[in-house]
Amino acid sequence: MYNVGKIAIIGGGSWATAIAKIVVGHTHHIGWYMRRDDRIEDFKRLGHNPAYLRSARFNVDEIFFSSDINRIVKEYDTLVFVTPSPYLKNHLRKLKTNIRDKFVVTAIKGIVPDENLVCSEYFHQVYDVPLENLACIGGPSHAEEVALERLSYLTVGCKDVDKAAAFTEVLASEFIKTKTSSDVIGIEYSSVLKNVYAIAAGICNGLKYGDNFQAVLISNAVQEMNRFLTAVHPIQRSIYDSVYLGDLLVTGYSNFSRNRTFGTMIGKGYSVKTAQIEMEMIAEGYFGTKCMKEINRHMHVNMPILDAMYNILYEGINPQIEIKLLTDSFR
Amino acid sequence: MYNVGKIAIIGGGSWATAIAKIVVGHTHHIGWYMRRDDRIEDFKRLGHNPAYLRSARFNVDEIFFSSDINRIVKEYDTLVFVTPSPYLKNHLRKLKTNIRDKFVVTAIKGIVPDENLVCSEYFHQVYDVPLENLACIGGPSHAEEVALERLSYLTVGCKDVDKAAAFTEVLASEFIKTKTSSDVIGIEYSSVLKNVYAIAAGICNGLKYGDNFQAVLISNAVQEMNRFLTAVHPIQRSIYDSVYLGDLLVTGYSNFSRNRTFGTMIGKGYSVKTAQIEMEMIAEGYFGTKCMKEINRHMHVNMPILDAMYNILYEGINPQIEIKLLTDSFR
Repeated sequence: MYNVGKIAIIGGGSWATAIAKIVVGHTHHIGWYMRRDDRIEDFKRLGHNPAYLRSARFNVDEIFFSSDINRIVKEYDTLVFVTPSPYLKNHLRKLKTNIRDKFVVTAIKGIVPDENLVCSEYFHQVYDVPLENLACIGGPSHAEEVALERLSYLTVGCKDVDKAAAFTEVLASEFIKTKTSSDVIGIEYSSVLKNVYAIAAGICNGLKYGDNFQAVLISNAVQEMNRFLTAVHPIQRSIYDSVYLGDLLVTGYSNFSRNRTFGTMIGKGYSVKTAQIEMEMIAEGYFGTKCMKEINRHMHVNMPILDAMYNILYEGINPQIEIKLLTDSFR
Repeated sequence: MYNVGKIAIIGGGSWATAIAKIVVGHTHHIGWYMRRDDRIEDFKRLGHNPAYLRSARFNVDEIFFSSDINRIVKEYDTLVFVTPSPYLKNHLRKLKTNIRDKFVVTAIKGIVPDENLVCSEYFHQVYDVPLENLACIGGPSHAEEVALERLSYLTVGCKDVDKAAAFTEVLASEFIKTKTSSDVIGIEYSSVLKNVYAIAAGICNGLKYGDNFQAVLISNAVQEMNRFLTAVHPIQRSIYDSVYLGDLLVTGYSNFSRNRTFGTMIGKGYSVKTAQIEMEMIAEGYFGTKCMKEINRHMHVNMPILDAMYNILYEGINPQIEIKLLTDSFR
């Protein structure tokens, strides 16, 4: 079996922290890049991430922290990127080291802005990482619940399914069940789209649409997602596998979802700006909406929910009017 | 277009009341069979159903009430059956009138006990109603939300799609969107199964499984439903249409769902008997589980969730143990 070697985590948010916790439980050593030295110092002193997922306790002797991305990249074989997508390019800009031979795993649920590429495409096109060295982690997985050791299912996607299987070995545990897939691009796009649909679910919630309608919205979102994935990467896939449908459900229905909360605020009449300030966290779906809209300008897939979100979030159209129009397109 | 004629509602529960309210809004006259004369008297006096959905107000001059099912059947052309499935046979036993030429619409989310037939099959086999005179109403539709005039989508299934379309005319309104389908049996089975899966969602909730796992459970439930429908009635269908997936979602995720609530109590350690007494309402999925298990004994479809529910509800297996086993079968 493929040897994943020494593993480093790039990023310091909740999902990065949850993945670090899982991996270090297996390997008893990880590298961990965080941008801010003060955060690293606090982490070492407290034994937990000072800003996110504080309940996850770490043995800091098992972690090599660094705010120098080049040092981390040089010393580790498998790099797990878990930053918010809008910051990925900034982190990578500091790279002076070639990453062509690394095993690059992304757990970023977003598109690389301006480039309008999913992360694996970006690493492939810009950093020459071969497709068989690129993997992604997907599946319904609120970081908060993973940290609470509540049973979760993760899927590792990689063109080279042996490598995917090797990486699942450092994830699987009593409370993490894993599977593999070869559909990297499909998983990445679906994890972007589900955030867009979670915002839609939130907006409808804020506008006082009920559970009956939410069920219709999500059913239509699955169909829209399937249409897009079939157009962008036409392989045989079951859209109701948990990595696609399950991830959409957990994001669309859960109160842990910040995209849904962001949408609820918009539906209740907050401006986009105010909602963002109040939440103090990035709702990835906000950026995802713009990127997906731009990507779909060339793909021409029928995506009424995406279009409605774009109109509300970027064109200033009244949510009440836009959602009313959307309801007419539903089946 | 087919003329649905004079419409009568058979049954006095919440869903019957919601459908009556929708239909009489169009036709300004309905017949309404209720078993109990005292309920009818109270209804007439109060202007609303005394026991269910009290917020739905009626002009009682537009309703011909009767506790004599034969009189209702004789005088009306379209009969909408909306009783809990365990009581259907009792009501029908009183019939002395032929219903062969009636348009029979069922909105019963259950199997006819002992017979192990969905309602359309039962009316067809036992009462000689031809298939093209049999329709069903499906879709994500909590009666409470329909009564609150929250936007809902209903699907009318009938082998004769013209007749389905004719019946949608008396349902469609500003807050009810409709569509038609020819998949009567598929819709009926899916509305039985979703109650079984809602109990499963409730049990897992009661056992403190989190949102990540619920999403995996529902994704697997959709697949299980699809496998069964494909085996029992192999036609071309999109399982993620709102009448299948949406109905499952609204039942599995909503707090209005009494099947889910029933499951939550079981998961928390209540006995089946205690949970039923506490709820004072029938959780249809309890009966549905037994019927579906018996039907599947001949079909041999791989249905691990159904099997687990049967083991918990009828074989006295500890939910914690049974669900733990189930998690291993999930993908």
